[in-house]
Amino acid sequence: MSDQVRIYDCTLRDGAQAEGISFSVDDKLQIARRLDELGVHYIEGGWPNPTNPKDIELFRRARDLPWRNARLAAFGSTRRANNAPEDDSTLRALIATGAPVLTIFGKSWLLHVKEALRITAEQNLALIRDSVAFLKSHGREVVYDAEHFFDGYAADPAYALETVLAAQEGGADVIAFCDTNGGTLPGAVRSAVGAAKARLRVPFGIHTHNDAGLAAANSLVAVELGAGQVQGTINGLGERCGNANLCTLIPTLELKLGRRTIGAAGLARLTDLSLFVSEVANVYHDHRQPYVGQSAFAHKGGVHIDAMLKQPLCYEHCLPELVGNQRRFLLSEQSGGATVAAKIEHLLPGLDKRHPTVQELLSKIKHLEHEGYVLEGAEASVEILARRALGSFREPFRLIGFRTINRQTPAGSEVEAIVKLEVNGRVYHTVADGDGPVNALDRALRRALEDVYPQLAKVTLRDYKVRVLSSGDGTAARVRVLIESSDGEHVWSTIGVSENIIEASWIALLDSLSYKLLRDGLLDGGPVASSATETGEHPALAAS
Amino acid sequence: MSDQVRIYDCTLRDGAQAEGISFSVDDKLQIARRLDELGVHYIEGGWPNPTNPKDIELFRRARDLPWRNARLAAFGSTRRANNAPEDDSTLRALIATGAPVLTIFGKSWLLHVKEALRITAEQNLALIRDSVAFLKSHGREVVYDAEHFFDGYAADPAYALETVLAAQEGGADVIAFCDTNGGTLPGAVRSAVGAAKARLRVPFGIHTHNDAGLAAANSLVAVELGAGQVQGTINGLGERCGNANLCTLIPTLELKLGRRTIGAAGLARLTDLSLFVSEVANVYHDHRQPYVGQSAFAHKGGVHIDAMLKQPLCYEHCLPELVGNQRRFLLSEQSGGATVAAKIEHLLPGLDKRHPTVQELLSKIKHLEHEGYVLEGAEASVEILARRALGSFREPFRLIGFRTINRQTPAGSEVEAIVKLEVNGRVYHTVADGDGPVNALDRALRRALEDVYPQLAKVTLRDYKVRVLSSGDGTAARVRVLIESSDGEHVWSTIGVSENIIEASWIALLDSLSYKLLRDGLLDGGPVASSATETGEHPALAAS
Repeated sequence: MSDQVRIYDCTLRDGAQAEGISFSVDDKLQIARRLDELGVHYIEGGWPNPTNPKDIELFRRARDLPWRNARLAAFGSTRRANNAPEDDSTLRALIATGAPVLTIFGKSWLLHVKEALRITAEQNLALIRDSVAFLKSHGREVVYDAEHFFDGYAADPAYALETVLAAQEGGADVIAFCDTNGGTLPGAVRSAVGAAKARLRVPFGIHTHNDAGLAAANSLVAVELGAGQVQGTINGLGERCGNANLCTLIPTLELKLGRRTIGAAGLARLTDLSLFVSEVANVYHDHRQPYVGQSAFAHKGGVHIDAMLKQPLCYEHCLPELVGNQRRFLLSEQSGGATVAAKIEHLLPGLDKRHPTVQELLSKIKHLEHEGYVLEGAEASVEILARRALGSFREPFRLIGFRTINRQTPAGSEVEAIVKLEVNGRVYHTVADGDGPVNALDRALRRALEDVYPQLAKVTLRDYKVRVLSSGDGTAARVRVLIESSDGEHVWSTIGVSENIIEASWIALLDSLSYKLLRDGLLDGGPVASSATETGEHPALAAS
Repeated sequence: MSDQVRIYDCTLRDGAQAEGISFSVDDKLQIARRLDELGVHYIEGGWPNPTNPKDIELFRRARDLPWRNARLAAFGSTRRANNAPEDDSTLRALIATGAPVLTIFGKSWLLHVKEALRITAEQNLALIRDSVAFLKSHGREVVYDAEHFFDGYAADPAYALETVLAAQEGGADVIAFCDTNGGTLPGAVRSAVGAAKARLRVPFGIHTHNDAGLAAANSLVAVELGAGQVQGTINGLGERCGNANLCTLIPTLELKLGRRTIGAAGLARLTDLSLFVSEVANVYHDHRQPYVGQSAFAHKGGVHIDAMLKQPLCYEHCLPELVGNQRRFLLSEQSGGATVAAKIEHLLPGLDKRHPTVQELLSKIKHLEHEGYVLEGAEASVEILARRALGSFREPFRLIGFRTINRQTPAGSEVEAIVKLEVNGRVYHTVADGDGPVNALDRALRRALEDVYPQLAKVTLRDYKVRVLSSGDGTAARVRVLIESSDGEHVWSTIGVSENIIEASWIALLDSLSYKLLRDGLLDGGPVASSATETGEHPALAAS
């Protein structure tokens, strides 16, 4: 079993310390359930203590849930210097959670012992030893996190080693070496782990932070030296620059180092989980993230795409499907027929790149790009565009007209949008206000459409980006609007270009809502009135 | 000089291959100028070839500019197999740039030689050798990028070494080992670089990608083995997961490995540059980025803040000011007033920073920044803001109100703006149409003002940029508008923030025109009617 590395997830505790993150108890339980399904071995649920009732509630509710793979861990610190272990509120709160795993951190660095705890070196060793022993006496698995182990080792190697030996004497089941400040270099990790390993009998783990961009490398060094537990968070969420990213480490351990972690089935769900956690945390999903980012297997350079079509190994270090991601050929100025054919292959399998439909679509794409469209990041718009070119797209409604009015006085501003359109033969005439004209337009449009398409209520606009295309013309320049939308399960991007920012936003907005209906199977042969299908050219093309 | 590592920046070439990035020639020249000021040694400007006229123009314009620290590099490939070097269009285009440094990549991996180039192993060695020799014969510094060196070495070590020896025989000045697919582990980098180093007489460099989160670690391995050149991009922009991030590597090399790169003064400007590149590229600035991210020195956990207040070393691996960043306590009010003071110091020479006016200005700036203003890139707005706080700014007019109306039907769109304001006691009520609401507003505003201030006719808006500040709220999110203006002699930037894009644009527009009048001496003691000076709070402040 020496090839197994056990994954210890800290997303719900360290991850919650990231800037901009605030998980509810329900959020945490949802994420924990998905982590359990993924196959991680430990889930650190939180830090239960009297001032943190949310985490106490979490452990209470988690007790009754069925866990398939993971063991839940409650996190805390060693006892306070003046308390006996059995009287220490932190240790008692840990026991009270009923969690099968208890993780406590202690100090390895004399700087912290003296300046933060303000106790002696000997007192610190004693409280590590008896805090661990007390938790063990309650029959739990105990993980000892050696906080600042590497900084401590750099400052005083002998003392740092004494602290982890104290935890071992106390009976710790696993000792995790922590690079708490995240600035340690791989060579220093190698020396310190090597030295500690020579003195320890119990298994050890590694917990790193990414303040010098080395969290992944430092974790791998420890695994090479025999670490049996790797701690980290989904998407690398965490204090400052974040923790080691499990979405990076798990595939590297499985696919490059040949270790067993969550297995192939878990691996194939990793991209979904990564998106899910960003969604629940309501934070930007880094599209450049290794393995699970939207761009991780996206090819743009002409030379790259050309070679990829001959041999995928040329510019990919691993197959995207292994981690549940997908290869993308970004449509850009350099794209040729082969890229377009690859893009629409799912619509017309086996289509030759010299086929007139491909050529027609290619020339539409080139024309749109000349007008300022960048389709590389807007797959939903490309999908709609391709279906329109193939004659298989039914417009969800017919626009009669819209209007936005923005009034401003020194007292403030007022915005209204009025939308008139026809769906299934019925005319809807709606009005809404909003924070700005696009927000008002979005609300009026939904008011008109949600009667017929209630599923649009689930669609939220996650991001809205505007770029001016030709500088030199100032406010008369052409603008490009990119909208990122989500229905809680999927994320898609759409684009609109116009000299008028409101029209550009409208085009992108429309494509976004149309794409949702398309995905839900409501536009192909669905109940769309013939009047709506006779709209003719859609604004996305009319604008070009 | 053995402790020097020369920084080779690829932002304008590899960085431009990142998803969502599209630099204009002006964008590239702006970034290049800032890189040169920072102190990087090489700037790779682009790939000049007949199908890429933008990069040809870039090198033409760059020739006449004064470069203080950096040498400009033009990038391309080895010759095609059937061409003699002197007839090869790629090599000829490189020579024609006049760039002092020419960088070409060649194939190290037989898979590519056979499946992408479809030539023999020997043909590949010959074309590497004579392509380099041809460029050297024109007296340029030649960098040879050994593409896929590590994958090539893993597949066939002897052949990978032969390719770099061929480049050495051709006379290459530097040979850069490239982890093009970004999936190589540090141990493999160590073996391959070690083996190559034993055979090479010329200096070598390292070029890594981040597909396994190891770009920084892999670069450091090569530096430890003696690499004298490190290639990377600002913010790690690049194909797929991006290139090695110079904003991470430069501080690590300087502060942790003791190498000389751009020196302490350059280092202190790194955070500014990182933000600047994101602004120009109009992409999200990763707030968790090591060293230069907004969260890199942001402390949230209670235990962390507690200890930090006793001793900053407790939870920071380096001092934020060394890289131009700042420490932030997320749960307290203690963000650095001194840093804000430094930002406006040049506007208030000799004024003590404890002076009440400075304090008032500081609190206004901090308030605006909290609302999403980034005054870093908008000097003209800072100038006006400071003068307003100092009581030396006279508003050019009093706004009574404005309105924009946007109508759209399938036949097209129509936009009108109506502006009512008072200048020198006289009320102007004007209307104009435009391509979009902001353009119409700009025209109506000028119609009202040009009667009194004819010099405004000279002002053109050169660029108009919009960013959404808080994603997660879609179109209801706060937007930031940056406007770049010029009067033919000077260029200045102004900023506006609001939930309403039109209001944000209006604020930036107004600051822009006000700045022109300020520059021309028309607002300080100039003929501005008393009614106009009694306007009270300016929209820039009212919006906040």
